[in-house]
Amino acid sequence: MNLNVYLSGEIHSNWREQIIQGCQESNLAITFSSANTDHNESDSAGDVLGAEDKSFWRDHKSAKVNALRTNTLIERCDIAIIRFGDKYKQWNTSFDAGYCAALGKPYVTLHSEDIIHPLKEVDATAHAWATSVQQIIETLKYISK
Amino acid sequence: MNLNVYLSGEIHSNWREQIIQGCQESNLAITFSSANTDHNESDSAGDVLGAEDKSFWRDHKSAKVNALRTNTLIERCDIAIIRFGDKYKQWNTSFDAGYCAALGKPYVTLHSEDIIHPLKEVDATAHAWATSVQQIIETLKYISK
Amino acid sequence: MNLNVYLSGEIHSNWREQIIQGCQESNLAITFSSANTDHNESDSAGDVLGAEDKSFWRDHKSAKVNALRTNTLIERCDIAIIRFGDKYKQWNTSFDAGYCAALGKPYVTLHSEDIIHPLKEVDATAHAWATSVQQIIETLKYISK
Amino acid sequence: MNLNVYLSGEIHSNWREQIIQGCQESNLAITFSSANTDHNESDSAGDVLGAEDKSFWRDHKSAKVNALRTNTLIERCDIAIIRFGDKYKQWNTSFDAGYCAALGKPYVTLHSEDIIHPLKEVDATAHAWATSVQQIIETLKYISK
Amino acid sequence: MNLNVYLSGEIHSNWREQIIQGCQESNLAITFSSANTDHNESDSAGDVLGAEDKSFWRDHKSAKVNALRTNTLIERCDIAIIRFGDKYKQWNTSFDAGYCAALGKPYVTLHSEDIIHPLKEVDATAHAWATSVQQIIETLKYISK
Amino acid sequence: MNLNVYLSGEIHSNWREQIIQGCQESNLAITFSSANTDHNESDSAGDVLGAEDKSFWRDHKSAKVNALRTNTLIERCDIAIIRFGDKYKQWNTSFDAGYCAALGKPYVTLHSEDIIHPLKEVDATAHAWATSVQQIIETLKYISK
Amino acid sequence: MNLNVYLSGEIHSNWREQIIQGCQESNLAITFSSANTDHNESDSAGDVLGAEDKSFWRDHKSAKVNALRTNTLIERCDIAIIRFGDKYKQWNTSFDAGYCAALGKPYVTLHSEDIIHPLKEVDATAHAWATSVQQIIETLKYISK
Amino acid sequence: MNLNVYLSGEIHSNWREQIIQGCQESNLAITFSSANTDHNESDSAGDVLGAEDKSFWRDHKSAKVNALRTNTLIERCDIAIIRFGDKYKQWNTSFDAGYCAALGKPYVTLHSEDIIHPLKEVDATAHAWATSVQQIIETLKYISK
Repeated sequence: MNLNVYLSGEIHSNWREQIIQGCQESNLAITFSSANTDHNESDSAGDVLGAEDKSFWRDHKSAKVNALRTNTLIERCDIAIIRFGDKYKQWNTSFDAGYCAALGKPYVTLHSEDIIHPLKEVDATAHAWATSVQQIIETLKYISK
Repeated sequence: MNLNVYLSGEIHSNWREQIIQGCQESNLAITFSSANTDHNESDSAGDVLGAEDKSFWRDHKSAKVNALRTNTLIERCDIAIIRFGDKYKQWNTSFDAGYCAALGKPYVTLHSEDIIHPLKEVDATAHAWATSVQQIIETLKYISK
Repeated sequence: MNLNVYLSGEIHSNWREQIIQGCQESNLAITFSSANTDHNESDSAGDVLGAEDKSFWRDHKSAKVNALRTNTLIERCDIAIIRFGDKYKQWNTSFDAGYCAALGKPYVTLHSEDIIHPLKEVDATAHAWATSVQQIIETLKYISK
Repeated sequence: MNLNVYLSGEIHSNWREQIIQGCQESNLAITFSSANTDHNESDSAGDVLGAEDKSFWRDHKSAKVNALRTNTLIERCDIAIIRFGDKYKQWNTSFDAGYCAALGKPYVTLHSEDIIHPLKEVDATAHAWATSVQQIIETLKYISK
Repeated sequence: MNLNVYLSGEIHSNWREQIIQGCQESNLAITFSSANTDHNESDSAGDVLGAEDKSFWRDHKSAKVNALRTNTLIERCDIAIIRFGDKYKQWNTSFDAGYCAALGKPYVTLHSEDIIHPLKEVDATAHAWATSVQQIIETLKYISK
Repeated sequence: MNLNVYLSGEIHSNWREQIIQGCQESNLAITFSSANTDHNESDSAGDVLGAEDKSFWRDHKSAKVNALRTNTLIERCDIAIIRFGDKYKQWNTSFDAGYCAALGKPYVTLHSEDIIHPLKEVDATAHAWATSVQQIIETLKYISK
Repeated sequence: MNLNVYLSGEIHSNWREQIIQGCQESNLAITFSSANTDHNESDSAGDVLGAEDKSFWRDHKSAKVNALRTNTLIERCDIAIIRFGDKYKQWNTSFDAGYCAALGKPYVTLHSEDIIHPLKEVDATAHAWATSVQQIIETLKYISK
Repeated sequence: MNLNVYLSGEIHSNWREQIIQGCQESNLAITFSSANTDHNESDSAGDVLGAEDKSFWRDHKSAKVNALRTNTLIERCDIAIIRFGDKYKQWNTSFDAGYCAALGKPYVTLHSEDIIHPLKEVDATAHAWATSVQQIIETLKYISK
């Protein structure tokens, strides 16, 4: 079974690469996608459309240019992986989770045990919760059979 | 014009009461709704269905009982107000924003200027960003005409 | 908060009446509905449209006349209660659960512990699982606030 | 005409293999899919995500991991075959039928004559009822022309 | 149970009035609606928008003005009655049936036995087939309970 | 521009073959599809599922087996051609037109001038009306550029 | 038949008031709505949310605050009247027409004959084209019967 | 990331060719599409279906034949570019923008600074505003990564 899997969330560790490599080693027919994970490129995505004095509008333009890409990718995916790390607000990640939920796209969360409570609404709508990359890989192997 | 307005987010200040009172003083035909804002009641919403040893499952059950209520309210609303305070993770709030976005429900964010950057994706999809309760009231007055 | 609640499932005990009475005693603003729970009336719903020699077609006509009613009621409900008793096949009940799931209608299951395993797919999509009528009433009280 | 056909239901006889082989012998351009039909694998699908003391939660996790797979497959199929055998509750099978019905996915039921009555609602929404694998194969041949 | 019922089809007998009267005598909470059944008014519905030399465009304009009304009524109805008489082409009636089918609006056909064969596709998607006004009234009584 | 075109309607002349050949001669990237146009095969499509004494049920079963095929084809098409000849009731053809209309599938009608009036509702929702196969071919050439 | 009618377009003549008055004189059960038609108020709708140096962002904020109102009104309407005057760009008016078209909301255009050609795409999707307020009133009378 | 991009608007400059060439030079996996940009061909698209005396109906027929093509292309696109030049009414362009908005298709506007104000509603729903072809190319490069 071929799958499109969208990888949403934390950009400060190499969890994406680990999942992709683990799935490749098992020859799974999965196409992975994600937002631009280069922090600077992402923050400046809208700069080509003209400079802004206010940070709000600079952020606004960049966020919308990124959304051109991510909305399309989320619409196309079969499953999303929603990853929360231990730092930063990561509000865009739970925004993606809510967006997937309303579209009926199933998702799996990936986060450590110490943030169970603040993520309870996000986890309640998830199809699964994993604490390690290896669990995600095993789950993708299982459903790709 | 009558409106259903869903108030999502922070439960540690009285912003909901201020908005409701401000709109009542202007006799706006707005029906407000929100999740259960009593923290303890909300956390124990699923306890009636049986005790759980693991905090994950206790949270899971309570979050889903609350979702029975909030999903229905969000489906019924015309507009949501998405409020971020200066404390806590508030991932359920940006989850609500993403959920509204995918349903095509317009929302207005309410937060201070110092969290513009981490909220850029949430604000990019918003119809407006306000920094004070008074701005929300004025906006609701305007659109209720 | 007013609610439309559809009561699906077992017709051999008075669980519907108990729920309705329990909610009335608390003055909840809930409108309850259900399929025709009179077994003979339900089975003969299509007879007015002409007799059939084959039981398949008699069943077919009655099931479709009943569906005229139940499809409309399920479309209108906010929440469904899905009740499994300890006898009979009750395939129409899990059919209703699947129908609700695909429509995005949240539902709560009501069944005893000894049928957890065969109901695991139905429960996995439910917003809650209750084992007693009293738990259903308490849950409806909570979300009606 | 190429088709995606989802095979839902009984896992204790080789009806899936018979249908697939019969269609292959006629060189039909049909891609078949189904849930994991290995009972043990299916029941333990969620074990990789951590052990559970309560059977309810073990079942819950496994059912949801399986749903990650089956929801995607049902969304992609053009037609489903809904098979009821003569044993077990098979509530997940009629759940699938209801799910297909609400999505507008046409399905064909496959079951013997002695369970016509309890399946009347499931059959009423079906596009056809077959009693033998051979009838399913003939029907797929006809619509694949 | 209150219902909106749309009455589509033949305008040369008083079947609508009979159904409405029969339901009123039983105090059913049904709101009936239909297209304009005055043939001349219906054919000239677009004349107010300017005269046309070609009959095609006169028909076109009138049909579209009527559709302003009927599309809204069909969208609002819970159930449609689709009536075929023994004369005229009545293509608009089966058009309504197809329109209802694709919207998921259940309908009941009303026609005599001698046109079963040409109506087989229309009947196959119907929830019921009646041959007399009295059967329609009985069916509406049953589902209105 | 590649297109999927569904050819609905009359089965007593070779208009389908003419359109297909005309488009092939211009090398248009169009995939054509249609219901089974063999009258006997179509009428007996359900016979494999068991004999029926009543013609209503025989027709019912065959119409539904055919719908398994045609519903899928109509869902997949970009455009439909809706052809009315000068004989027979052809209610299934206007049913297809209504079905396409509600799904938002654009269609072109093909019929002679003398049935403009009874087809006014079907034509009013069409994107174009043609009186000859050649006009259909020219239109398909134009939009395939 | 009660109707919700949205009045979109030109704000420099009193066509809205004429339509509303004409319908009131006939006691039609129509609820009319429209965007804020006070040009200054509309242009400054977002000013309460903070001043902007760039006119683009001031316009952006005001347009989005107005959209909070108009999106809701268009979602609620049964029919829209789309009015083009003889001055200004009026791009928001044809934007509304396209928005209605994609939502399946029928609309009637109101404009003089000299702008037929540039409005051909907008008129092609309309249910009717009127050149005078009186024609709109007559059409609303007809469909309100 | 492969993309389908629909190019809507002005047909009097070579902005389409510039964008296509710019993207080809960077080997982007983008499939571009657009309405027929030959003014005469577009205006006469319906002529093959018969001559019309009134310019309204000639325009009507041509606009609808063109819509057969453009509706399909817009449904298939991931992103639209909405281009306004400095001449002509261009109401079909903002109609396309409104159509995309209601379908949830993200779009980028391309226009000079002097028409910001009349385009404020169109820009408010856009994901980005560009003033030069080069900015469009850079944005497409960024999101195609």
